[in-house]
Amino acid sequence: MIVMKEAATDEEIDAVIEKVQSAGALAHPIKGARLTVIGAIGDVEQDANIETLGLEGQPGVDRVMPILKPYKLASAQIRHGERTVLDIQGRKIGGGHFALIAGPCTVESREQLLETADIVKDAGAAMLRGGAYKPRTSPYAFQGLGQEGLRLLAEAKERTGLPIVTELMDARDLEPVLEVADVIQVGARNMQNFPLLAEIGRSGRPVLLKRGLSATLDELLMAAEYVLKEGNREVMLCERGIKTFEGSYRTTLDLQAVPVLKELSHLPVVVDPSHAAGRRSLVTPMSLAAAAAGADGIIVEVHPNPDEAVCDGPQALLADDFAEYAAAVESVAALAGKALSAV
Amino acid sequence: MIVMKEAATDEEIDAVIEKVQSAGALAHPIKGARLTVIGAIGDVEQDANIETLGLEGQPGVDRVMPILKPYKLASAQIRHGERTVLDIQGRKIGGGHFALIAGPCTVESREQLLETADIVKDAGAAMLRGGAYKPRTSPYAFQGLGQEGLRLLAEAKERTGLPIVTELMDARDLEPVLEVADVIQVGARNMQNFPLLAEIGRSGRPVLLKRGLSATLDELLMAAEYVLKEGNREVMLCERGIKTFEGSYRTTLDLQAVPVLKELSHLPVVVDPSHAAGRRSLVTPMSLAAAAAGADGIIVEVHPNPDEAVCDGPQALLADDFAEYAAAVESVAALAGKALSAV
Amino acid sequence: MIVMKEAATDEEIDAVIEKVQSAGALAHPIKGARLTVIGAIGDVEQDANIETLGLEGQPGVDRVMPILKPYKLASAQIRHGERTVLDIQGRKIGGGHFALIAGPCTVESREQLLETADIVKDAGAAMLRGGAYKPRTSPYAFQGLGQEGLRLLAEAKERTGLPIVTELMDARDLEPVLEVADVIQVGARNMQNFPLLAEIGRSGRPVLLKRGLSATLDELLMAAEYVLKEGNREVMLCERGIKTFEGSYRTTLDLQAVPVLKELSHLPVVVDPSHAAGRRSLVTPMSLAAAAAGADGIIVEVHPNPDEAVCDGPQALLADDFAEYAAAVESVAALAGKALSAV
Amino acid sequence: MIVMKEAATDEEIDAVIEKVQSAGALAHPIKGARLTVIGAIGDVEQDANIETLGLEGQPGVDRVMPILKPYKLASAQIRHGERTVLDIQGRKIGGGHFALIAGPCTVESREQLLETADIVKDAGAAMLRGGAYKPRTSPYAFQGLGQEGLRLLAEAKERTGLPIVTELMDARDLEPVLEVADVIQVGARNMQNFPLLAEIGRSGRPVLLKRGLSATLDELLMAAEYVLKEGNREVMLCERGIKTFEGSYRTTLDLQAVPVLKELSHLPVVVDPSHAAGRRSLVTPMSLAAAAAGADGIIVEVHPNPDEAVCDGPQALLADDFAEYAAAVESVAALAGKALSAV
Repeated sequence: MIVMKEAATDEEIDAVIEKVQSAGALAHPIKGARLTVIGAIGDVEQDANIETLGLEGQPGVDRVMPILKPYKLASAQIRHGERTVLDIQGRKIGGGHFALIAGPCTVESREQLLETADIVKDAGAAMLRGGAYKPRTSPYAFQGLGQEGLRLLAEAKERTGLPIVTELMDARDLEPVLEVADVIQVGARNMQNFPLLAEIGRSGRPVLLKRGLSATLDELLMAAEYVLKEGNREVMLCERGIKTFEGSYRTTLDLQAVPVLKELSHLPVVVDPSHAAGRRSLVTPMSLAAAAAGADGIIVEVHPNPDEAVCDGPQALLADDFAEYAAAVESVAALAGKALSAV
Repeated sequence: MIVMKEAATDEEIDAVIEKVQSAGALAHPIKGARLTVIGAIGDVEQDANIETLGLEGQPGVDRVMPILKPYKLASAQIRHGERTVLDIQGRKIGGGHFALIAGPCTVESREQLLETADIVKDAGAAMLRGGAYKPRTSPYAFQGLGQEGLRLLAEAKERTGLPIVTELMDARDLEPVLEVADVIQVGARNMQNFPLLAEIGRSGRPVLLKRGLSATLDELLMAAEYVLKEGNREVMLCERGIKTFEGSYRTTLDLQAVPVLKELSHLPVVVDPSHAAGRRSLVTPMSLAAAAAGADGIIVEVHPNPDEAVCDGPQALLADDFAEYAAAVESVAALAGKALSAV
Repeated sequence: MIVMKEAATDEEIDAVIEKVQSAGALAHPIKGARLTVIGAIGDVEQDANIETLGLEGQPGVDRVMPILKPYKLASAQIRHGERTVLDIQGRKIGGGHFALIAGPCTVESREQLLETADIVKDAGAAMLRGGAYKPRTSPYAFQGLGQEGLRLLAEAKERTGLPIVTELMDARDLEPVLEVADVIQVGARNMQNFPLLAEIGRSGRPVLLKRGLSATLDELLMAAEYVLKEGNREVMLCERGIKTFEGSYRTTLDLQAVPVLKELSHLPVVVDPSHAAGRRSLVTPMSLAAAAAGADGIIVEVHPNPDEAVCDGPQALLADDFAEYAAAVESVAALAGKALSAV
Repeated sequence: MIVMKEAATDEEIDAVIEKVQSAGALAHPIKGARLTVIGAIGDVEQDANIETLGLEGQPGVDRVMPILKPYKLASAQIRHGERTVLDIQGRKIGGGHFALIAGPCTVESREQLLETADIVKDAGAAMLRGGAYKPRTSPYAFQGLGQEGLRLLAEAKERTGLPIVTELMDARDLEPVLEVADVIQVGARNMQNFPLLAEIGRSGRPVLLKRGLSATLDELLMAAEYVLKEGNREVMLCERGIKTFEGSYRTTLDLQAVPVLKELSHLPVVVDPSHAAGRRSLVTPMSLAAAAAGADGIIVEVHPNPDEAVCDGPQALLADDFAEYAAAVESVAALAGKALSAV
């Protein structure tokens, strides 16, 4: 939809119409009392063409307003309203299935990881999370155990049977990560790392894609589209808080994203209350709120001894409290029509 | 806490210490390897004094970081952790009591108001909301029925017994509003209308104070402090969405505000999902999420025929669906340990 | 422009067309391959009607996108591109005229005010600013000298001949403010205090309207429209910083607002670098930047002894430095084609 | 600085003191009337240790406020106020040297690139910009010419002698980019792509590092620290607009960042008005404003025929207007004490 300036001349209007047609789309002008609007009718590919026409800079053009959403494979329409249900080694997520993904922020040691894995498994978690590669704001901060962390995750998986969710930050680490990860996590800071997204797309491995700290939902869905376009349909979206001017918590958890992502897309929606809040006291209320809002899962940090955690200890749930937490989440999810996914 | 620049001289440090002491506070310098920090120990009144010292502009000063929260009467500390429970004509809100406040955005007609009032009462609402004076972004938009609207609210109150929540925008309208309002609503755009807050404080009437569209929680609590300072202790805080760069919904409902306001303050916390979202399909999931997060109440818009509504129809729940909605909210609130407040 | 959902039925499309026509507008449907868009052609009044139709909530409607700007009197079109030049007691602002408005944040004492007034007059300021009523986040902070402040401003005006710019916070104070103010300032927190705007509109006195801390430019222009609609055409717009997540300065000065407000509106645009930055070291660079961006004026805080200032001392320019500052601003404004306005 | 809760017990306070000491820092408690604050005195390395102590989650701890900036090599202190001046193949930037970096958004063709290169060289540009790898929100959009684009840049460099600024998105493309780039650009979306930053740091090649769309200045400086830490001291910082809720332009150019980055760091500061605004009419006023605010350079998009541009045409200056533009920027930069850098 191209909105012309009030002062646009007939010649300028005609020039725009011609350009639209040259891109293979139909131009449909509407002349109002004060200005003219030109509808350009085509499909996503032609939209991409129209985008490259530079219409926004043309004489007489006020602005160009896209009508169609810029994503296709991620859109709800493509599956005619049917929801995607993923099956990760037997654990389902999406539709009526609610998955609790739990574990430490970072893999620190064999003991810490195995102890946490046992506890979350017993309490009904569907998958184990744990970071081997950690994106850190400071180059002086602990950057993760790397390959040793991956090895420990493999051990935890063998011991508990829990599928592993772990982050990939660098396409050059894809191979070792593929050896252990059942779900590859893409962190908020890499949501628009397009070469990484395409590479993961090509790998075919399920993905948990976190919303960037200031990303809109359309941008998140376009990031998902990068993965989907490579033929990988196993994508979960994850809301983890956005930056606002409120300083009382690390970020603002945007739970409206849950129902809206489900209107816009067929993909499962997961919520990460731990990173959003940055402190433990908010994790339980926001987990319950996420379940009530209709989330398909929660990814949450748990630590046997958070005071000793190498990173993000203040936001980790105490392992001892996890069973009670899981039960509370389960009862709210049940009210929202979802059953906890476990094997 | 005054942080000196790394290059600050001893004279500059001494000058700051002297200034702090001149305001009646104790100065407590800490010399680190790279810079000096000066703690100023006093109470809120002395803090206000220290604020007026212009320390931020003093030579050698890098920044001034307040440690104590700037509000006192609104703080959780003043009641030693005990929560305020308000009693509005027999309807309780706060503590274990959850109040559902429902009604049309605007009073449009006798029929519309009375029909809605009957329905929300039957479904368990604790209070009736309805605007007689409407703050509108456009001077060309409908501005409310004014005094005629107040008269209709009085009739609805007499008929149903429901206490009335209605907005005051102009201190010059206080008198007629006091004749009908059991709770005076202060809208988001007036959260920092300080003369209005003080006037309502002096009136002694209970207040529902909405968070401004870009207000921090500290600013909201300072606005409450304006009311409390005049001796009016009957204040409810209301989260109604903040502006972000997400364009898929009108504002971003910040549910973390619910548990955090309860940590910071003893006042009840209400959530307005209707104005936050701006569209009906989000109102139910976000209401459930608010209840799960521990809110003390919800203020929600209901209309017998939203397609005909004069304003904000797209966000109003259908009156016909309200009983089902109220039951769903009640069951989630119950999980959070709260019972619906009604007479 | 009404965008229908992809799944909208013909009946739903027809119902929307009928509604649009019932509001007196022309409906113009465009059927694309995937969805239908309906253009509604009318003018601002009919737009207001269309807004009240509740189309956003109608079955089959995806979203409603307004095409015309919602303001009329503030728009550039209404004057066919001619710029408004205000004449405040002989000082011009707008077009080729650049006005420097300077003075203390708050009127504190006779000495402070008169000394500052003399200095800024000598350095070429066009008007004197000074607050008698101060909006303060904290009820415990100094709230201004009130009527005594107004009396001192009157004395400064008589002495220097400088027109006075001072803030009005409460419509009930309009009369005494009108006795001394040549320009009534509306603060950022009152930008959407609609009864106050309308009252000032009726007074006919020139207005300096500050952009709210999270207001969009469209909202600022709608606030101006409230004043203009009452017949008062003497409005200046003022950019004073918006809230962002950047914590190094109080707010983020949005200088793109200067050229864009001039594209959208015929009204003069003033910049307030003092409140935006909150600290002195940024005031000069940002003043020069504002002049370079094409601002019609600057409102800046100056104090003979900022360390002793009752409020906002850290952001006040030293009176001793003001002449040099004014000369620097003048030379950048000259490059932007503007001459300093003085008598 | 660790702020204890008002209700913190002596045991809790002692436990925190002990933890601080265990990290090798000095603990310095200040007991106020209402609460206790504990200063932890150490250096950046110990701060990193203290960060890992999980103090925020400890019983009795209200919050932890860092005093020292988390970057060291990027800080102004490390060079005792002396500014870094980079020399890129004879073109200086920083200190009194202002560099104009100009060219097309994307390398599209031999003709387009060479024509633009000739024009910007003649008008006094110091370097040529041009993208071979383009980060695009949509996977369906043009992603750059890749290696063929690099080859054309090499040709333009040979022809004009202008140093080349071009973006690297993927560490796996480092080698070919190093063959032609005199300055490696890191785009806003990759500002926190930590493996990429470290890799570029190791390459030793000068870097132009763009601020992320929602990054704070501290985060930008921490990203620079990742490069500096690898021994690469040739870093320029670039402000290119941040996301806000204002919808009239693509992002909000934050010019306060210019003087503040210069207070915080010794590194040169460049402004990108093209991407910030997204449209041509704002580029000249914002370039002048950037120069007035004290920027060390501008990176701007120029195209011989923007209407035909493959991407971002609407924001490109017309090549025909560039000489006039450069002269205007030069005269404002001169007022700010800077001379255009050219050979």
